[in-house]
Amino acid sequence: MIGHDAFPVEPWCLRERTLDLDVLAQTESLFSLGNGHIGLRGNLDEGEPHALPGTYLNGVYELRTLPYAEAGYGYPESGQTVINVTNGKIIRLLVDDEPFDSRYGTLRSHERVLDFRDGVLRRTAEWESPAHQVIQVKSTRLVSFTHRSIAAFAYEVTPVDGAAAQVTLQSELIANEALPAASNDPRATADLDAPLAAEAHANIGPAVELVHSTRRSGLRVAAGMLNEVDAPSETQIVSDSHHDWGRVTITATLEPGQTLRLVKLVGYGWSSERSVPAVRDQVMAAVAGAHAHGWDELVADQRSYLDRFWEVADIEVEGDPEVQQAARFALFHLVQASARSERRAIPAKGLTGPGYDGHTFWDSEGFVLPVLTYTAHHCACDALYWRHETLPMAKERASQLGLRGAAFPWRTIHGEECSGYWPAGAAAFHVGADIAAAVGRAIAASTDDRFERDVGLELLVETARLWRSLGHYDLDGRFRIDGVTGPDEYSAIADNNVYTNLMAQQNLRLAVTVAGRHPDREADLGFDAEEVASWSAAADAVYVPYDEALGVHPQADGFTKHELWDFDATTPEQYPLLLHFPYFDLYRKQVVKQADLVLAMYLRGDAFAPEQKRRNFDYYEPLTVRDSSLSACIQSVMAAEVGYLSRAHDYLREAALMDLHDLEHNTRDGLHMASLAGTWIALVAGFGGMRDHDGDLLFRPRLPDGLTRLAFAVETRGARVRVALHEGAATYELVAGDALDVRHEDEVLALRPGTPTSRPLAPPEDGEAPAPPRGREPQARWTV
Amino acid sequence: MIGHDAFPVEPWCLRERTLDLDVLAQTESLFSLGNGHIGLRGNLDEGEPHALPGTYLNGVYELRTLPYAEAGYGYPESGQTVINVTNGKIIRLLVDDEPFDSRYGTLRSHERVLDFRDGVLRRTAEWESPAHQVIQVKSTRLVSFTHRSIAAFAYEVTPVDGAAAQVTLQSELIANEALPAASNDPRATADLDAPLAAEAHANIGPAVELVHSTRRSGLRVAAGMLNEVDAPSETQIVSDSHHDWGRVTITATLEPGQTLRLVKLVGYGWSSERSVPAVRDQVMAAVAGAHAHGWDELVADQRSYLDRFWEVADIEVEGDPEVQQAARFALFHLVQASARSERRAIPAKGLTGPGYDGHTFWDSEGFVLPVLTYTAHHCACDALYWRHETLPMAKERASQLGLRGAAFPWRTIHGEECSGYWPAGAAAFHVGADIAAAVGRAIAASTDDRFERDVGLELLVETARLWRSLGHYDLDGRFRIDGVTGPDEYSAIADNNVYTNLMAQQNLRLAVTVAGRHPDREADLGFDAEEVASWSAAADAVYVPYDEALGVHPQADGFTKHELWDFDATTPEQYPLLLHFPYFDLYRKQVVKQADLVLAMYLRGDAFAPEQKRRNFDYYEPLTVRDSSLSACIQSVMAAEVGYLSRAHDYLREAALMDLHDLEHNTRDGLHMASLAGTWIALVAGFGGMRDHDGDLLFRPRLPDGLTRLAFAVETRGARVRVALHEGAATYELVAGDALDVRHEDEVLALRPGTPTSRPLAPPEDGEAPAPPRGREPQARWTV
Repeated sequence: MIGHDAFPVEPWCLRERTLDLDVLAQTESLFSLGNGHIGLRGNLDEGEPHALPGTYLNGVYELRTLPYAEAGYGYPESGQTVINVTNGKIIRLLVDDEPFDSRYGTLRSHERVLDFRDGVLRRTAEWESPAHQVIQVKSTRLVSFTHRSIAAFAYEVTPVDGAAAQVTLQSELIANEALPAASNDPRATADLDAPLAAEAHANIGPAVELVHSTRRSGLRVAAGMLNEVDAPSETQIVSDSHHDWGRVTITATLEPGQTLRLVKLVGYGWSSERSVPAVRDQVMAAVAGAHAHGWDELVADQRSYLDRFWEVADIEVEGDPEVQQAARFALFHLVQASARSERRAIPAKGLTGPGYDGHTFWDSEGFVLPVLTYTAHHCACDALYWRHETLPMAKERASQLGLRGAAFPWRTIHGEECSGYWPAGAAAFHVGADIAAAVGRAIAASTDDRFERDVGLELLVETARLWRSLGHYDLDGRFRIDGVTGPDEYSAIADNNVYTNLMAQQNLRLAVTVAGRHPDREADLGFDAEEVASWSAAADAVYVPYDEALGVHPQADGFTKHELWDFDATTPEQYPLLLHFPYFDLYRKQVVKQADLVLAMYLRGDAFAPEQKRRNFDYYEPLTVRDSSLSACIQSVMAAEVGYLSRAHDYLREAALMDLHDLEHNTRDGLHMASLAGTWIALVAGFGGMRDHDGDLLFRPRLPDGLTRLAFAVETRGARVRVALHEGAATYELVAGDALDVRHEDEVLALRPGTPTSRPLAPPEDGEAPAPPRGREPQARWTV
Repeated sequence: MIGHDAFPVEPWCLRERTLDLDVLAQTESLFSLGNGHIGLRGNLDEGEPHALPGTYLNGVYELRTLPYAEAGYGYPESGQTVINVTNGKIIRLLVDDEPFDSRYGTLRSHERVLDFRDGVLRRTAEWESPAHQVIQVKSTRLVSFTHRSIAAFAYEVTPVDGAAAQVTLQSELIANEALPAASNDPRATADLDAPLAAEAHANIGPAVELVHSTRRSGLRVAAGMLNEVDAPSETQIVSDSHHDWGRVTITATLEPGQTLRLVKLVGYGWSSERSVPAVRDQVMAAVAGAHAHGWDELVADQRSYLDRFWEVADIEVEGDPEVQQAARFALFHLVQASARSERRAIPAKGLTGPGYDGHTFWDSEGFVLPVLTYTAHHCACDALYWRHETLPMAKERASQLGLRGAAFPWRTIHGEECSGYWPAGAAAFHVGADIAAAVGRAIAASTDDRFERDVGLELLVETARLWRSLGHYDLDGRFRIDGVTGPDEYSAIADNNVYTNLMAQQNLRLAVTVAGRHPDREADLGFDAEEVASWSAAADAVYVPYDEALGVHPQADGFTKHELWDFDATTPEQYPLLLHFPYFDLYRKQVVKQADLVLAMYLRGDAFAPEQKRRNFDYYEPLTVRDSSLSACIQSVMAAEVGYLSRAHDYLREAALMDLHDLEHNTRDGLHMASLAGTWIALVAGFGGMRDHDGDLLFRPRLPDGLTRLAFAVETRGARVRVALHEGAATYELVAGDALDVRHEDEVLALRPGTPTSRPLAPPEDGEAPAPPRGREPQARWTV
């Protein structure tokens, strides 16, 4: 899409120069706004044309019965699906008696700009109506980072020339919008028709409020709006409301050059507990607060909030302007997904679309939180507070499965397991270890022990318990974990998945360490020295299979003995393979959907010798088809580590451009948060060479040919270090905090404020990496 | 149930002395009648009380959409479910103004007898109506072996004493009966409400005809009846018909001792092609034919047919009268399931109930056909002609799965795959080898090469092709078959399941041998010397895993390394495990639903050394919970072989009494054909010690303590040998055919007519077998 002429490459915004209806669905995702609580797809202000209207509230879902052709014990009976709540984005415009709709008349110009620093979506359009009245429309839209419940819209319309025009604006709230039919793609969403039952509606002058409840999940959702009109002449303002809609109609007659300006403040709230008046009033209070604050202040606050964010999070990339833009695009959407989620989940698509039913997966802890931990630490902690709140459900699930501890769901919104296909769902127990790893990182990066005491300890204890009961000792005394599914979804129900086993080992050890710091909590959490010792022993005995004949690690027991996938017989159109081949065929052959053993080598690099890493990378590279958006960033990191810098750059680009180029053909359903996070990971952990060992940061930076500069900052333990790779040197500067030790290659640098330390970069190694599967080569690199 | 006082142990019938409504559903299955084309559950003549009304026509099913919580490529979209067709069994009786219903008034006596030699179900009852009118009812019911489309009913009613009674009989046909709601048990059936759309109905005097079609599968079903009345006085006969019912009403006034007798002839027919008049007329022609033949002749023909059957099939057992009765019960139901199925499938429940949706599984070729091959050879061949007719579907399925040859369905009625859970369905590829083995047996037992040329060759070629494309060579040159599911449904998607690999090896070798006899068919079937050589090479290289440390064969790669199931923590109420534990848990542990490796040792005994068999049996015995009805008979055979004769007897009894004692608590849904067949297998292959090596019969007979005599006959290659084990000797007598060589132990006996040959039995070995899992011990043995 950026490759599309309409999308110029710019460092601090995403600009669309003309409106292309063929990619409308994708731009609705790309231009979406959110704050982690509210998400608005980038639908046009007038509502139509649209591809997929979308307004989401984090945590608001409807239940649906999960059907099974053949029933089985322990199958989840009910799924949770994110719903499109009341649409507050719509401001319809009637010019004389014709609706402004780009499909009629002539759209003389149309531009949309998502500004990463201002945190707003701006739009300008010039349109000639079928009756030849020409008007200019300007709008600015934001979802406030500082007013959590508020979305705000400024909409201006000006007749450009010719006669006076009668202009009518209809500022609306609409519930239960008709949505396009769901596709058969398992990665999309389930169809839910009119999920909201009307409970109350009212219109009072320029304000309207609507209250609905979901029918099965019993969540109450309120939306309210207030419309501020600024017009050069007399205007008529009329309001109406009904069960599923509310409307404020503003009519004015404008001379050419005169502007009618509307500021629409929309508030959202929901609750599973509070009454209709309570939820309605909290929303209207938020609207009143925003009104008192004023539009200009809302815009200014947005900028201030982001200025602080960028101060830590910004990454500078010289030499690949596409990646520069994509990195900021990615970080902007990450902060939009998490800033105010406040103990709610961060879904795989954020709040940008209904893909994957709005569910949260291990992506959250595995990809998104590692970025937030170092750039917006409190957001990472908040997401783990959410996991902690779901512990009762995870413990119940473990018990249902005959296990101890907590079995966190493969996919969920509220906390219950919602996976309807257990071999690639419930069996992927590694999610527990991914959560534990995120907990470990968050603890190590914290300045005090509040997070550890509040949630970290218990999460580690309950996940360690799970591993201890899930694994068992074989006759040789090895601790095995059989019959589980690792990250690679083209294998399932395998014994001793290396990733799972190594992450479980780390999980057990983290629990041992942290539990040891809290003997006072033994009674409360029910652990004792004997149990802790059993975790330690299991961790020490964890079995890691190795194929001596090939000199590589099999992804799981037996993997390297399986038949090789016939890549030569597979055409590019047959990707993603899951849509063209049965799981049966995929599971039994050597074909890898996404980094699995390679991910283990990144996250548990300590468990592999350098030469093993290279051999393993070489083995898995030709088998990995990257049918998942979770793969390229990890392959980039490991390609950089083992000395394939060009390949690392290729994969960085794939991760970075996943949505901007719609590489998986499903950006319409929402953005891929993990791949957006993967852009940061590939830059910082890949070329920056950063690793975190219990909070000690190590760097083995190296720049690929073509990148002339890379700079980023990392916050940990209250300190912030800025790292710049440029002209053959790495410079480390402590820009906040009093002192921090980091490692550059094998040397410890004791950083102090005001004294940047430079070290020469190791000579870049750029070997010839084995070719990826035919038809799955990464895209060509940026050339000037 | 036989243990139930109401069911005396008798050698040639199943008698129920009183009506017990608590086991009505079970007796409806036990007393069902059929001929392989028509199946009638043993519902009471008057229609009610009933538990599960059932009338089935082999091959008549309705389609239903198979739902999936998460879609996947290649999942079957449509399932097939057997339907309850027009009920022709009902003869309602009104005595004065009260319906004969055992729940009202007083049932003074009630007896039902299923006569294995006469092939009829007889019933006598004496009932006092609430108004104290006492009547006697006698009925006889049959489904004709000689008139394939005909079921016939004789119904007599006699006032016993007191005043004259006005008696009204309503002889009915009823379509779309309301059925009880389906249960959640995955082994039961899907709910289909009113599956028949009415197409025509007519009543002409004492005859009624109804024609319906299934809505989605488009099958036309006709039922017709003719009622013959024999009464001592004047009777009124009125008939009616409507879309879903037809009724002939007969009214007479009877003095005490006078009898009103009704003979009801019901005809059934169905077609996917023929028109309403054509199907209707074929049914009424069949009824007319039966009418011309006459009731007495129908009854006599039934006896003659069965006399011929028992001449070959009968097994005499002395010392365990329960097993004697059960063995004949079993063989009677086997002939009922297969006699006239004529190129239709033999479902897992025969036509005795709707369990498993009326589907046919590998049970047919794996358990039922081995019995029929030696007792009713043409029935076994017919069932394989059916498989051959489904080859186009199996080849298409293979192609959809990316394979060559034919992938036969795990479960089906018509031939398409209907499994909605692929890990325990489509992945169980061994069904192909089971079919091939049945083909091999049928070929070897044939007197000419017609079966081989017509269907055997092609079935072997296409199944061999499948194995060749499903397996692959590893770096050590071993031919592996990865990611498939063997017979044990508590494991799935495993590598190198020993049963599957050995059966595939046999399949490949059979194909090589038979293809070599038909060079003229190379062009027709598309094989050549090179392809045949590739089957041979693959067979020779088949990999059979072995656990050197334990000295046993793992059921599949890695099985013996898995955690042992915690049998001590499993209560008897938690069986079958599949209803109380998730597949996830079952698959990853050492717990075996049904004989798997042990079945391999029976069917591929040549691949195991005697000492291995004993070690393997000992290893798997404590792991095998027998949650499948396919297990006990096989464990019986192998227990006998390895020298645990008492255990073999226990398992024989479990197989034999599966339905008579309702051991799996689902006899209500229909009888377990495979376990019925298993009774024969346990007796003949177990204690008879019979094995078939390419048609050469070997016997290693041994009688357990308690059995004083065992005699059975086996037909092969046009010869029939009668084997009797008695007083320490085995006697072999050729009772049909000119000559047959059989082996007794290691000696070849050249049998000739009229010269019985006796050999002493080897001394019985009855070691102490390892205990089965706690709570799964077989039932206590018969004691006098």
